Formats: sequence, structure tokens, C-alpha cells
Amino acid sequence: MHHSAGYVITSGPDPPSCCLSHSVPPVAMAAWAVGVKAVLLDVSGVLYDSGGPAGGTAIPGSVQAVNRIRESGLKLRFCTNESQATRGQFVQKLQKFGFSISEEEVTAPGPAAKKLVVERGLRPHLLVHDDLLPEFDSMDKSNPNCVVMGDAAENFSYQNLNRAFQALLNMEKPILISLGKGRYYKETDGLKLDVGAYMKALEYACDISAEVVGKPSANFFMSALAEMDVKPEEGALTSQVCKKALMIGDDILNDIGGAQRCGIRAVLVRTGKYRPSDENHPDVAADGYVDNLAQAIDLLLSSKVSR
Amino acid sequence: MHHSAGYVITSGPDPPSCCLSHSVPPVAMAAWAVGVKAVLLDVSGVLYDSGGPAGGTAIPGSVQAVNRIRESGLKLRFCTNESQATRGQFVQKLQKFGFSISEEEVTAPGPAAKKLVVERGLRPHLLVHDDLLPEFDSMDKSNPNCVVMGDAAENFSYQNLNRAFQALLNMEKPILISLGKGRYYKETDGLKLDVGAYMKALEYACDISAEVVGKPSANFFMSALAEMDVKPEEGALTSQVCKKALMIGDDILNDIGGAQRCGIRAVLVRTGKYRPSDENHPDVAADGYVDNLAQAIDLLLSSKVSR
Repeated sequence: MHHSAGYVITSGPDPPSCCLSHSVPPVAMAAWAVGVKAVLLDVSGVLYDSGGPAGGTAIPGSVQAVNRIRESGLKLRFCTNESQATRGQFVQKLQKFGFSISEEEVTAPGPAAKKLVVERGLRPHLLVHDDLLPEFDSMDKSNPNCVVMGDAAENFSYQNLNRAFQALLNMEKPILISLGKGRYYKETDGLKLDVGAYMKALEYACDISAEVVGKPSANFFMSALAEMDVKPEEGALTSQVCKKALMIGDDILNDIGGAQRCGIRAVLVRTGKYRPSDENHPDVAADGYVDNLAQAIDLLLSSKVSR
Repeated sequence: MHHSAGYVITSGPDPPSCCLSHSVPPVAMAAWAVGVKAVLLDVSGVLYDSGGPAGGTAIPGSVQAVNRIRESGLKLRFCTNESQATRGQFVQKLQKFGFSISEEEVTAPGPAAKKLVVERGLRPHLLVHDDLLPEFDSMDKSNPNCVVMGDAAENFSYQNLNRAFQALLNMEKPILISLGKGRYYKETDGLKLDVGAYMKALEYACDISAEVVGKPSANFFMSALAEMDVKPEEGALTSQVCKKALMIGDDILNDIGGAQRCGIRAVLVRTGKYRPSDENHPDVAADGYVDNLAQAIDLLLSSKVSR
């Protein structure tokens, strides 16, 4: 990867030695924090852990961290692959946990898939969570010519997977659209298989490749940047779109790898689905590693203040 | 692929033109039938279609075809990837449909997996059909260090897949053993996802590769040959083990491709999971294509008589 001049990408939380020599507390000078004007936040595993009767629990310090981003004047957008509910229901849940968040601030794969299906005149067979169904209410679903799958959770039954498979095999040219391709995520009672695992099952059975809507798709990150009016650097390469933006997530491939391929810096939190082996991933190195969102925002705002 | 002299592999049911010139009915001279001394039969989709309250229905002509193989003096073995029951229960079901078959004549992945688990001192977490559980009754399943998965059918629930996934992620070095890797099979009420699809889901989620026991593994075909005392040709290459044996199956990859990689000739039936596109598969061409087992045995026995 090519790094242009002006900032240094570190592969860990340690600051470059030049900073240490000025006797500034190291925590204040994370290289990834310099010059950030806009923050993209993953939600599950960063703001809260899903699962349980209440639908999840906030991760300590995250409610305050979101408030501090707002107070700082940084631009903010939530960039999630969650597809277990409409965007409205999702936001209501987060508000109950105490988060300051509105529906208009969320980039989610459900609306993106809906847009794609409408644009191409497709008739979807749905393999999604019951709570996402309203997103597709108005659509013609007769004689389906594509399958749209999201994180269907309990709806990932043997019967429903067979039905989606049979629908695909009945199509002249099977089209499978997947809301994300995550491997797993953390719920309060343990790790759960995400939509990507079931996507692979259908891809293999039908010998096809899915079209992924959501992270790590570059289109999805670009939409999120556009929606908060962050524009590519002047003269930037397509692969180096915006150094002013920072992604914070718990998924080394979909959050960190995906953002970096768009030229967005990306920091991994040690919450949610994080596992220590993520810090030695063979393909992706984050620009920084932090214990949680609160620490990321500490470092980010300290950097802002110190300049 | 190198073909040694003595017979011709055709990629379709048409006999070579040399036969036609002798005014023998073409059906009598399928090149793949010449010199066959032993028959390996796939079961599901060849002898019967599974599913429904009775557990399936015999495919017309197949009961008689099995009897005709026995009467002909050809060696016979059943080579199945079925893992929804112990071998004993499986054979009982087939006997009810009228088939002449005994437990000792069946090569199945359940016993093969059991042998492998015992030899390596593994403690399995089982993701299998309830009826296969007795196969693993005597084993230590505490603190599992491998997952054994078969065609679990209704047991492929969201909960059970999450449990198998969590078991794998808890292992220092995750080991996944899959009884076959079929994509799908046909039941009386439609096509169903086979174990291979769910294997791919777990492989992707855990970033591992499964060890496959059963077809298309060469070890499995070699066991079946050994069990009916069919020996490799003298001086044969490892990849050309036995031209005396013929595999008949409905799975272009696992039956046909798998057998051919061992030097076993293989004929695809147009029953079971067969789809017309299988006759133009990009990677595998069968040695012959027949409408069903009855026609295969007609061709095979006519060839025997005509010499």
C-alpha cells in the first residue's frame, strides 16, 4: 500500500518515537488520530453487544463517547451491517440504551439492498429477520428472480435455508444479494454465526457468488461518507478517498480492511467480536488498536486539543 | 488424463462408431461397460429417493436391477455418503423398499469417521442426525477437540450450528470432520441442502478447512474396493487403480469425479439430484450417461453377454 506524506500509519497503539521525545503523554499522539474531521462508527460490538431479553447492553463508556464526538464538532455517522430490524427499530433500541442517535445518521444495508432491488426491477425471495420484512413490504415478491438474505438469526432454519436454495435453483440466472458477509458477531450469551456463513452455504450449494451490500463493499463506505458530506481529498486516487475520515469497528475484515481499501483510516476496538488473534491478522493491520470506543475517543480528542 | 489401451472412455452414451459398423444394437456396446467385474452403487438418487413419511420411495426398476447384478456374478458394493442413520437402520429401510442388501455390503462415512476419531484419540462434538448418534455412543465427548458433522437435516438448526461453531472457536486447533461434502440431494418433496453447504458455513466462519470422510475422498473409494476384494491392476498408477470397477451415481462431482480420480469408471444416472446441466459440467465428464440404474444394468449385462 502507498502512504502519501503528512501522516504515519502505525500498526499498533504505540506512538512514533518522535512524539515521545517531546515528553507528551504517548496516549495523546496516536498517529491515526491526526487530521480526522469525521468519524464512522460501527455499532454492534462498538456501542453495544446485542442479545438477551433487552436486545443487548451498552458497552461501558460508549454512550458518553458518542456524546463527546458530538460536542467536539467532528462529523459523525453510524455505519452498520445490522440487518435484524428496520433502521427505525434499530435506532429506537439504541436510544433506549441511552445513545444519542437518529435514523438519518445511520447507513445500513437494508435500505441499500432495497434501492438496488428497485433499480434493477428484481422480485426478491426474502431470507431475513422478521423485523426487517417491513423494509420490503411494497415489493412484488411473486415468481422471485433473486434471493435477498440478511442476518435472519432464528429464521436461519433448515426449512428456510432449503426454501431459499430451491428458489435460487428455480431461477434461470440465480442472483443472491447478501446484507453483509460477516463471519460471526458477539451476543450477550456468546458468539453467533453471521449472515456470511449462511451466504457461503448457498453460494456453494448453487455454485454462484453473492453480491454483497454493506461493509466491506466500497460503495457502502462511499455512501456513508457522501451522506455526511465528506468529500475525497483533492487529486486523491479512487483507492485513497478520504484521509479525513476514521472508521472505528470490531471486525478486522469488514470494518478495518473494508475502510482501508477506500483510503479511510481504521481503528480496531477490543470489544464485541474482537479476538487477540485479530492483532496478527495475515491480511489486515489496523491503523490502531484500542481497548474500547471510550479510549479511541480519548486519543482522538487529545490529538485534536494538542495541536 | 491418460487412458491406457484396451478400452475407450466416451464422454456420452453413444457407442464408438466401430461398434455400429457391426450392426449390433448400439445399446449393447457402451464402451464403459466392457471388462467390468465389480459394481459400486451410490444409493440415494440411484436406488431410491429419500423423504416423506415412509423415508423414501424406490426408483422404478432399481430393485430388479440390483437383483440382476447379483445373478450376473458381478461383485457388488453399496458406496453411500448417507449419514442420517447408522448403517444398520439404513439397510433395514432399504430392505423394506424391497432391496436385496446387507449391512456388510455398505461402505458409509459414519463408520469411517468413527474409525478416524478413535485412531487419532479425538473427542467429538457431534452435529449429526439423531439416528446417527448411536454410532458414537461409546466415545468420550467431554471437552471436545473436534467437530464431526453429517447430514443432520432437521438438526441443522440455528442453535445447533452456533453450538458447533462455538465448540470450534474454543479449540486451540479447530478440527472439522465432515461426512461427505455434497451440495444437495433430492427428497420426495424437493431438493435439500446437503452437509457440504453447512460445512462451508463453518469453514468460512472459523477460517478453516474441513477433513472430508466419504465420497469424493480417494480413501473412501479405495476402502470400498478393498472391502469387495477388488485389487488394483498390476503395475497400475495410483491414479489408475482399477479399471475393473464401475461406479454408478447421481452426483457428478462426488460420485463421478471422485471415482474417476481413482481410475474407476463412472456412469451418471438421470435420476435423483441429476440436472441436465450435469452433462455439460465444466470439470467432470462421466464415462456414460443413462436414464436410470435399470438402463445402466441393461447396458452392462448386454456387454457381458455379447463377448
